Amino acid sequence: MVKVGIIGATGYAGSELVKIIHAHPKAQLKVLTTKSYAGKPFWEVYPYLYKYIDLTCEKLDLPALVEQVDVVFTALPHGHAMPVGAEVIRQGKKLIDLGADFRFKDYNQYEKWYQVEHTARELLEQTVYGLPELYREKIKRASIIGNPGCYPTSAILGLAPLVAERLLDPDTLIIDSKSGVSGAGRSPSVGTLYCEVNENIRAYNIGLHRHTPEIEQELSAVFGQAIKLSFTPHLTPMNRGILSTMYGKLNREMDTGALRELYDTFYETEPFVRVLPPGMLPQTKAVTGSNCCDVAVTADPRTGRVVVTSAIDNLIKGASGQAVQNMNIIYGFDEAAGIDSPGMYP
Amino acid sequence: MVKVGIIGATGYAGSELVKIIHAHPKAQLKVLTTKSYAGKPFWEVYPYLYKYIDLTCEKLDLPALVEQVDVVFTALPHGHAMPVGAEVIRQGKKLIDLGADFRFKDYNQYEKWYQVEHTARELLEQTVYGLPELYREKIKRASIIGNPGCYPTSAILGLAPLVAERLLDPDTLIIDSKSGVSGAGRSPSVGTLYCEVNENIRAYNIGLHRHTPEIEQELSAVFGQAIKLSFTPHLTPMNRGILSTMYGKLNREMDTGALRELYDTFYETEPFVRVLPPGMLPQTKAVTGSNCCDVAVTADPRTGRVVVTSAIDNLIKGASGQAVQNMNIIYGFDEAAGIDSPGMYP
Amino acid sequence: MVKVGIIGATGYAGSELVKIIHAHPKAQLKVLTTKSYAGKPFWEVYPYLYKYIDLTCEKLDLPALVEQVDVVFTALPHGHAMPVGAEVIRQGKKLIDLGADFRFKDYNQYEKWYQVEHTARELLEQTVYGLPELYREKIKRASIIGNPGCYPTSAILGLAPLVAERLLDPDTLIIDSKSGVSGAGRSPSVGTLYCEVNENIRAYNIGLHRHTPEIEQELSAVFGQAIKLSFTPHLTPMNRGILSTMYGKLNREMDTGALRELYDTFYETEPFVRVLPPGMLPQTKAVTGSNCCDVAVTADPRTGRVVVTSAIDNLIKGASGQAVQNMNIIYGFDEAAGIDSPGMYP
Amino acid sequence: MVKVGIIGATGYAGSELVKIIHAHPKAQLKVLTTKSYAGKPFWEVYPYLYKYIDLTCEKLDLPALVEQVDVVFTALPHGHAMPVGAEVIRQGKKLIDLGADFRFKDYNQYEKWYQVEHTARELLEQTVYGLPELYREKIKRASIIGNPGCYPTSAILGLAPLVAERLLDPDTLIIDSKSGVSGAGRSPSVGTLYCEVNENIRAYNIGLHRHTPEIEQELSAVFGQAIKLSFTPHLTPMNRGILSTMYGKLNREMDTGALRELYDTFYETEPFVRVLPPGMLPQTKAVTGSNCCDVAVTADPRTGRVVVTSAIDNLIKGASGQAVQNMNIIYGFDEAAGIDSPGMYP
Repeated sequence: MVKVGIIGATGYAGSELVKIIHAHPKAQLKVLTTKSYAGKPFWEVYPYLYKYIDLTCEKLDLPALVEQVDVVFTALPHGHAMPVGAEVIRQGKKLIDLGADFRFKDYNQYEKWYQVEHTARELLEQTVYGLPELYREKIKRASIIGNPGCYPTSAILGLAPLVAERLLDPDTLIIDSKSGVSGAGRSPSVGTLYCEVNENIRAYNIGLHRHTPEIEQELSAVFGQAIKLSFTPHLTPMNRGILSTMYGKLNREMDTGALRELYDTFYETEPFVRVLPPGMLPQTKAVTGSNCCDVAVTADPRTGRVVVTSAIDNLIKGASGQAVQNMNIIYGFDEAAGIDSPGMYP
Repeated sequence: MVKVGIIGATGYAGSELVKIIHAHPKAQLKVLTTKSYAGKPFWEVYPYLYKYIDLTCEKLDLPALVEQVDVVFTALPHGHAMPVGAEVIRQGKKLIDLGADFRFKDYNQYEKWYQVEHTARELLEQTVYGLPELYREKIKRASIIGNPGCYPTSAILGLAPLVAERLLDPDTLIIDSKSGVSGAGRSPSVGTLYCEVNENIRAYNIGLHRHTPEIEQELSAVFGQAIKLSFTPHLTPMNRGILSTMYGKLNREMDTGALRELYDTFYETEPFVRVLPPGMLPQTKAVTGSNCCDVAVTADPRTGRVVVTSAIDNLIKGASGQAVQNMNIIYGFDEAAGIDSPGMYP
Repeated sequence: MVKVGIIGATGYAGSELVKIIHAHPKAQLKVLTTKSYAGKPFWEVYPYLYKYIDLTCEKLDLPALVEQVDVVFTALPHGHAMPVGAEVIRQGKKLIDLGADFRFKDYNQYEKWYQVEHTARELLEQTVYGLPELYREKIKRASIIGNPGCYPTSAILGLAPLVAERLLDPDTLIIDSKSGVSGAGRSPSVGTLYCEVNENIRAYNIGLHRHTPEIEQELSAVFGQAIKLSFTPHLTPMNRGILSTMYGKLNREMDTGALRELYDTFYETEPFVRVLPPGMLPQTKAVTGSNCCDVAVTADPRTGRVVVTSAIDNLIKGASGQAVQNMNIIYGFDEAAGIDSPGMYP
Repeated sequence: MVKVGIIGATGYAGSELVKIIHAHPKAQLKVLTTKSYAGKPFWEVYPYLYKYIDLTCEKLDLPALVEQVDVVFTALPHGHAMPVGAEVIRQGKKLIDLGADFRFKDYNQYEKWYQVEHTARELLEQTVYGLPELYREKIKRASIIGNPGCYPTSAILGLAPLVAERLLDPDTLIIDSKSGVSGAGRSPSVGTLYCEVNENIRAYNIGLHRHTPEIEQELSAVFGQAIKLSFTPHLTPMNRGILSTMYGKLNREMDTGALRELYDTFYETEPFVRVLPPGMLPQTKAVTGSNCCDVAVTADPRTGRVVVTSAIDNLIKGASGQAVQNMNIIYGFDEAAGIDSPGMYP
């Protein structure tokens, strides 16, 4: 059994991780730490886990925690996982960070968009961007995983086949994403109160969202050349889910059938990407509670564009499920261990 | 592996059953039948199961179906499971009916409230009301299980300890239940359209709901004497969940602590009833996706009343999860096999 | 034009009042004060009012404010309206308080349930409980109005006809109320975040809610004798609305038709109570955005009980709409002035 | 008082129209017709209007109806308003059609996208596309108004200033729209059931939605040259509202401030378009219940694109409110008569 510690266990992503690891056949939850609830049983913070999980939230003692476990998951605001990375490397353990600290190959990008100094630059060479569909082999050998952001997961999986085949004019990419509210976390604020979000849709951070450079970094790597794109996130009245609608100009004529075939081939052996058959389009409810990313691609011959839509559960494939998928890859487990549920409907 | 057939697989309760049985470690899904979707792959009807479940919906051929399986589940409108019962008995198999046809000990009650003739009266003696917390021993030996209604499950589990100990004046019982919309099924109607239900709460069938005699039958059995009570169902804007708030006059002075102790003892060994500790009250979200029934009991010394609240997921403990719990009991499996998830939050 | 000042204008009830007064044909908004947003244009706090309302939020200067206006509305947490009452009386103006400070005839009740000292006891004799259906004549002459709580409005209007006619056994009254989230206000807290409330129903403050003594005070006054009752509030996933379901034992045999006739007569001349015709039951959506209270009464001959349901918009008839109705009565305006909209559907 | 008849009064758009006209200071509701509810009081179909509206639904007798009124509103599926147009012209009255029959200047476009024959081609010359912001002067003299679709209203108002000033590369236009469920009407279908829509977002009709040619027609007219664009509609879990997010390449460098100024000027005198000030972005809740269209424009210098978002209430500015705005223009009333409410929040 792999021994697991979770730092930042009481946010929504952290608690999802606690649940998944708890039920994982090959992993064992050893330590949970939180800033706000130290000393409380975890089920007091998340009553749905009463009688399922007995662990008590602890205050973080970093060296002691790393010593007790094989792998550390961090689900923290950006900037807080960098010291954890250093300690994990010192003790020869593994880190899977659900935040942004280890996602960027170029610390300048991180510093520019996040407006903090990167204090663990020397670790970036040993880190891998934890998107299994692109980096499975590297993940197997990595010590630090920068687990992808929720929006980037949906966008990169949606566009990678087209970008890899260089079928798109790279200047024409637009990503319009719609997210549920759990992505905003559990800290109280007026903007995420029920009455403010319910019956409401709005865009936010237009042109400025920090997931933009992350998407660009990965699609550029796939493309082999720098790509600049537009990304607009929206807050929508759901607990979970991201739907991304993506647009680009095709640089040759292709119909929907040919495009779907391309996607089928690209994701043929992937356990968690479902290229939908004709007549079906992604919807967030079809992936709620599952680690799947659903994708459909449509050619629009009128405009010469392709429209791709993808759907994920932002807390699972967009955060904790993908983190566990990465752990499974690192330890050579069945990649679906602990994350094989189809979710819940309705 | 127990071989399973499901008749009426494409309603919400039926599809939940399909999902649970598919993932069950000791059961195997052999046949799915539906009235409306015969010939279609099941995932076309429920796209979230794409790549998880390959079975195709079939038209019902009752004798052939019963022959292929060990246990039949029926998730049908009332009146349609009676012929299935006869066939199952003829072939020496097992039936677990999620409808109302086999819930009543006295067919007169059934005929009076459901306004149809009971055509399988002779089978009622071999049937057991499938509430494990009350009838576990009988369920082990039963051929036909009348799986409890969703509202009755929440109400009976909420009140049984008080009724069993005869702490209540039986004339004072009131059950006020709030249900999510999935209880109304997947057939289109104006009343269950998104725009009609969203941002809306209403009572319905006041004094007339068919779950009333079912609750009365079981609480009377526990009490050892006929009980008449008031039951009011409400439709609320949620997909899943029932919260029941129950009121009765105590016939002696007891404080909340003593009442909680009584509940703790009554449900001590139950795997799926969680008597909540002080400071916690049931909420539907804490049982969404799980087979648990959460219960809390509060004494109100001002009025001499006790107030009990209970929460279930109407599609799981209120329908398909409980049906599988009954199957587990019949076959001597771990009672939580296939239904051990804590669900999902948020 | 009556000149109006609103103290506490940026909560949900306060902002509803701002909107109503702004559109009122006989009233003019002079001053808005808030604790948190002084100096900001009101539309920055409530963007839906951009280009509709130009006023800027001010810091409270109580004597100056009272001097500028004819009537003051206070939408404040309990305890904060008492000094306003004193100043209003000193300057010979009117106060309509949407909080609890002026609702109780007996300050002991207030102090016991709210756990603060009542520092304006001498004003209680000049105050009137602002439920027009019971106290219209007194309201006309009052200087201070204690505007009813949201739950009490729905409960008292639902039960008053039965209590007035002494048709109920007063020991058997139970009120089970379901409220939307706006009743909890706009201050951020984990419990009212979208993700915590959405897809969730729960009871709270069982046996302890502060609206209990308010309901008892008024129904006891109608009955002419002290009534003790059970009241349970529930938080439900809606922005607006309260549905109350009320139970009591009839002390004589009456059918639904006779009861409805009684209600029709009782509320015959009321502009805002709609006794629903046969076949219709109250639903919160039917009163969203309106000042109406919908009521239906049902006899249940099986149990000898009566079940009443009532629905209001908690921010309108349950708060700001009723406050304006009281203002209209005081100044002899058409009672529906400014609050005559049927609301919005769906 | 202008006498009004409404054909198709019991859909969501029709009922909104009934409510608005009923409260309109210069119009009087004379006849309501519906296909399904003839003979029923209108409040039985929409209980929120009980005691507000007394009219009874009638079966359609077209010539008789047109004779009784000055202006007819049709809220019907496409194809059904064409005969009404002919009769209205014959009797010299006015028609405002909320459907698609009179929106196209070129009947070929209509026939191609709607797949039915246009049987009133000769009337198209006398019809005006009812977007007051573009065609106010023509509307004043029109006999038939083709009231704009909901998506087109949000898209055209969002893009018109940029297109008029020729600041965009016309080949780069993308419109990504998110709609509440009421746009799908009140006819029961699985796809609009509460449980299917709640907690779900999905795109539909990608590249094929019938509002595409309508948007293209109008933007091309503004541009003076044919524009082809991509339009993707999404179904989102809200009752009301459309948010459109629009993208295009700027053909010169402009910052957000300069763009906002352009919009301010373009809409300076418009009563119902609110160009939002810096720091505010459109959200559907801010226009729920109002006839406003909120717009914000953002330059993204990184990509050379402009991103515009606009929000409307699909049943008001996107349907019935705009229809009444057109009536007000035709009859020379205050353009905001009957539609001057800021709506409701939260």
